[in-house]
Order: sequence, then structure tokens, then C-alpha cells
Amino acid sequence: MPSDQPVIGIDLGGTKIATALVDPSGKILSHDYRETLAREGRDAVVARMLDSARAVIDEGGVEASQVAAVGIGAPGPIDMAAGVVVAPPNLHGWDRVPLKQLIESGMGITTYLENDANAAALGEHRFGAGRGVDHMIYVVVGTGVGGGLILDGRLYHGASGMAGEIGHIVVKPDGPVCACGRRGCLEALTSGPSIARQARERIAQGAQTLITELAEGDESRVTAKLVAQAADQGDETAESVLAEAMHYLGLGMASVVHMLNPQLIVFGGGVANLGERMFGPVRQVIAEFAFAEAAEVVRVAPAELGSNAGVLGAAAAALAQTG
Amino acid sequence: MPSDQPVIGIDLGGTKIATALVDPSGKILSHDYRETLAREGRDAVVARMLDSARAVIDEGGVEASQVAAVGIGAPGPIDMAAGVVVAPPNLHGWDRVPLKQLIESGMGITTYLENDANAAALGEHRFGAGRGVDHMIYVVVGTGVGGGLILDGRLYHGASGMAGEIGHIVVKPDGPVCACGRRGCLEALTSGPSIARQARERIAQGAQTLITELAEGDESRVTAKLVAQAADQGDETAESVLAEAMHYLGLGMASVVHMLNPQLIVFGGGVANLGERMFGPVRQVIAEFAFAEAAEVVRVAPAELGSNAGVLGAAAAALAQTG
Repeated sequence: MPSDQPVIGIDLGGTKIATALVDPSGKILSHDYRETLAREGRDAVVARMLDSARAVIDEGGVEASQVAAVGIGAPGPIDMAAGVVVAPPNLHGWDRVPLKQLIESGMGITTYLENDANAAALGEHRFGAGRGVDHMIYVVVGTGVGGGLILDGRLYHGASGMAGEIGHIVVKPDGPVCACGRRGCLEALTSGPSIARQARERIAQGAQTLITELAEGDESRVTAKLVAQAADQGDETAESVLAEAMHYLGLGMASVVHMLNPQLIVFGGGVANLGERMFGPVRQVIAEFAFAEAAEVVRVAPAELGSNAGVLGAAAAALAQTG
Repeated sequence: MPSDQPVIGIDLGGTKIATALVDPSGKILSHDYRETLAREGRDAVVARMLDSARAVIDEGGVEASQVAAVGIGAPGPIDMAAGVVVAPPNLHGWDRVPLKQLIESGMGITTYLENDANAAALGEHRFGAGRGVDHMIYVVVGTGVGGGLILDGRLYHGASGMAGEIGHIVVKPDGPVCACGRRGCLEALTSGPSIARQARERIAQGAQTLITELAEGDESRVTAKLVAQAADQGDETAESVLAEAMHYLGLGMASVVHMLNPQLIVFGGGVANLGERMFGPVRQVIAEFAFAEAAEVVRVAPAELGSNAGVLGAAAAALAQTG
């Protein structure tokens, strides 16, 4: 049933827990941040999540009974049917943790669990760049590449909650090895670490580039951000590395457009800070590679929720169920 | 509203019009086949479609008023909102033909228009391999490669009716040129004509193969079917051509599994007659390239409706709207 009661959104990451009390319009009424300290084990992390949720209730000046639901965005994969966090690489030692049930019983409030990319898609759809859009693909391009699909106005989970793993569609079968162990995935060509790796490879091949200077000669300091800085100063190697990565991102998106014919593709994550250096090539490749009838109806736009994406996404995951 | 009234399914192809009166359980009560004779122009084709529909009503012993709806499966792209066939390559001279309205007013029966791949997906979902399955991808691999998506139990159209163009996801960016003019599309690597082309290329490169003999030395007689015959007799070139094509088909399907996490992928079209030579490699590549959580829940199976796929699909398109 629709409600004007607030919800709690908890964004569980590998390094921090961000929590907010959020009203149905997306207004943050109170918030709390604390470290995850994953190394202390899951019970300690769950206890900190509960403390954080109680803190936003107190600071928000409401009673727990007035909170409609709790939404959690957690690293995937998630076993949706069981409400279980399976085994995220950045929460070491977590093995099938029944997080939905642990938070629900700890708070006494109905709790919904989503993977973080799906939660972010719900957040952008309800509060951000995708308001009022029925067919939206959310893509996060950062340390990894993930996504969430809003189809016919609703989040699409697929058969086992795994839909939207856009980062692992294969765009170059003979391409570089991906963090997932396979080869040529979109993530292996376009994530932040992939862009940095490609820059390091160019340097190893003898490219004279400003990147070396900006990294003060220390290869380990080469990041996608630094490559972008070099490109902004007209460095050809940096421009070429980014152009190639964004070409593959565009190819992946053209395949997404062929498959799903969305109205909107929303990009979040650190790499989306590249701005037109990202959006320009992606739009161009979609126009070139997708059928006109599908290419003409799709907009490509940046995410709007910024640093609140995590908590607003988690809140939206709760609101999708309650209101 | 659900109904036990029959519907008419019309499968409009480039060479033939197949029409059937179909009850809601999928039983064909009467049928009619005639040539499309597309060269005679759209008015003549539409008149033949109307004659064919009237013939199945007469033969079925019902009145037009007892027919719940007409469904048409037509070559895409289709402008769903307008009920218009846009400009299919195999219906030369057709330019934005308002087929829904022409048949509806000609028959006096509510008419629904779908592209043929979507109609076939609906047919397999309602009457064939996908009965009772909520998340199903239908892929036709024949002269071209197309598809239809059943998501959460319903056909997914996307923003402008273009969803499911699986044949044009890019699986090999530096690959062969596709009929669509682009490069490395799934269709350019796995369709019947693509398989034949790859066999001809091997022959041109000097491969000693049974294919040459089966084609009686005439390159133009090399078809995918003939390549399969050669493979069945142990011909290495033929086996290698098919294995490569099916590897790319598997890669495309692995990307589909990452995107959409289906329970079932159903293959129709002539290339699906390859049987285990197709299903084996596709299953293997999915198992290798898709995440376990998604790969474990997906079955890969042949279409079941055979030569009735067209009319039953068109009928299912009508039934999806009426019952």
C-alpha cells in the first residue's frame, strides 16, 4: 500500500556503511556513516548496521513503528528468494549470510535486500535521472561494471536475481582477462582498473605520455582519473586509451539497445565522471551500431544522485515494495 | 477477458501466407496456405490475407462474430504503436503499411500485429517449449537471427517494439560484415548463410572437404544444411566451421544470460535442426562464460511447434491480448 511513512536505506559496502532515513519523496531526514570493518566478521558488521539504523531513527525523531520498511543495498550476488548475501569478494569471509532476516529481526521492521547495482537503478528510477521513464538501463562503471534493468517500470530480476550483469557481456572474445577470470568482458575493457591497466601497457610499450609524469614515474599510481587528467591536457596516449575503452563501452551499450530497446541508459560510478569523453563516444557508437528505430529513442545520461546514490537506492528498494 | 472463442493466426512471410483458426488451447481447427506473391504489391497481398482468413473461418464452421481476434506475425521492424509494418526487406516495396488497420477493417475483427520473432516467442511460451516458464528467451537461427523475450511471463517490447534483436548484438568486433551492414553481429557468424559463407571461404583457402563434393563443385550450392551433412560424415572442415559458428552463438547466449538471467533459451529456425551439434557447444559456452548462479538455472531447448510455429505464434499474439 502507498504510504507517507519514511523508510530506512542501508548501503553496505566493503569499506563503509551508509544509512539514511528517507521519506517517500526522496528527502533524507537523517543519516549516519560508519566503517564496515569487514575484517571483524559478519556479526560485528550486522551489529554496526543495526546501530546505524537505530541512529537514523533517533536522529530523525521518529519511532521504529513509524518506519515502513528497511531496504538494504549489498554487494552481489544476492540470493533473492532466501534474502541471503552469497559471497561478495569485498566482504571477506561472508558465506551465504541471511542479511534480510538478521536486520529484520534486529529492527523489528520488514526488510528488503537488493544487490547494490539494482538498488542504484531503483534509486535513479524513483528519485534521479530516470524519473517517469518505463524502460531504463542503469550502468555503473567504476572499479567494476554492473547494472540494473528497469523494464516496463519495474526492476527486472530474472530467474535467480542475476539479471543486469552487464559488465560480463563479452565484447571482445580475444580481449584482456577480466576480474571474473574470463576474457573480453565489458568490465575488462572499460572499468577504472582496466583503463589504468591499458595505460600502463602503453607505457610499457614505450609510449611517451604525460601519464608517466603525473604518476611521478610510479606505475602503481596510474589510475583512470589520472589518465583522464592527462587527456584533458591533450596527451595523445591518454586520449587514445580512453577512446578505445569508451568505444567498447559503446559497443556493449549498442548490444544492450538491440536486446532491450530502452528509452534511457543512465551511467553512474567513477568512470562516468569522464563526462563527454564517455557520453560522446557511447552515443556515437550506439548511433552507428544499433538499428535506427531503437537508437533514435534512447537517451544516454549521467546518474543524478551522486554520493547519496547508495542510501537512496536502498531506500528505493524498500519503497518499491511498500509504496 | 479470458474466452474459449477461437482466434485467427496469420503468418505473413516473404514467400507464403499461412493462416489458421486456433482455439485457446492451441488446437488448429482449420488452416490455409497460399503464396504471398509480394511482387504483386501490398493491396494484392492484403487481399490474399483477407481471403485466407475467410477461408479458415468457413472451413472451421464458425461465424466471424465468434472469432475473438486476429493475430498477425509479420516481418519486422513493426511500429507497434501505429500497427504498421515498416519496410521489411522480404516484402519489397512495403513502406509503412498499416496492416493492423487494413486487416481489422477488412475482417471486422480486432487485430493485433507482432513481428514474427516475437509472435514465435509467444507461441512457444503458450503452446510449446516454454509452457509455464516465466523467463524465456526465444532465438530463431535461420536465414537471419532474431528473437523474442518473455520476461516475468509477458512479451517484452521495449520502448519502441524493437526489443529482442538478438541477432545484432556484437560478438566479434573485427568479425565479418553482417546483412545489416555492420560488423561482427551474432547473425554474421551463426546464421545459415553465414555458415555457408564460412565453408566457402575455407574451400577458397584450399581446404579439402566433402562439402565440395556434396555441392558437386558448385560453390553456390553450399548451404548450412550441406555443411551439416558433411560434418555428419566426419568431415573436419565442416565440423570446424560449425564448431566455430556455435562457439559464437554460445558467446552471444552467455551475454544474454548475463543480461537477462532466463530460465530457458528456446532455439527455432533451420540452424536449430543441427541438434546436439548446436545445443552441445551452446550449453558448454554458457557454462564456461556465464556466472554459475545464472548458468545453473538456464535450460537450452529446441522449439517444439515446428512448421506450425508461424500460425500458432500469430494466434498466441492474439490470445495474449484477449485471454
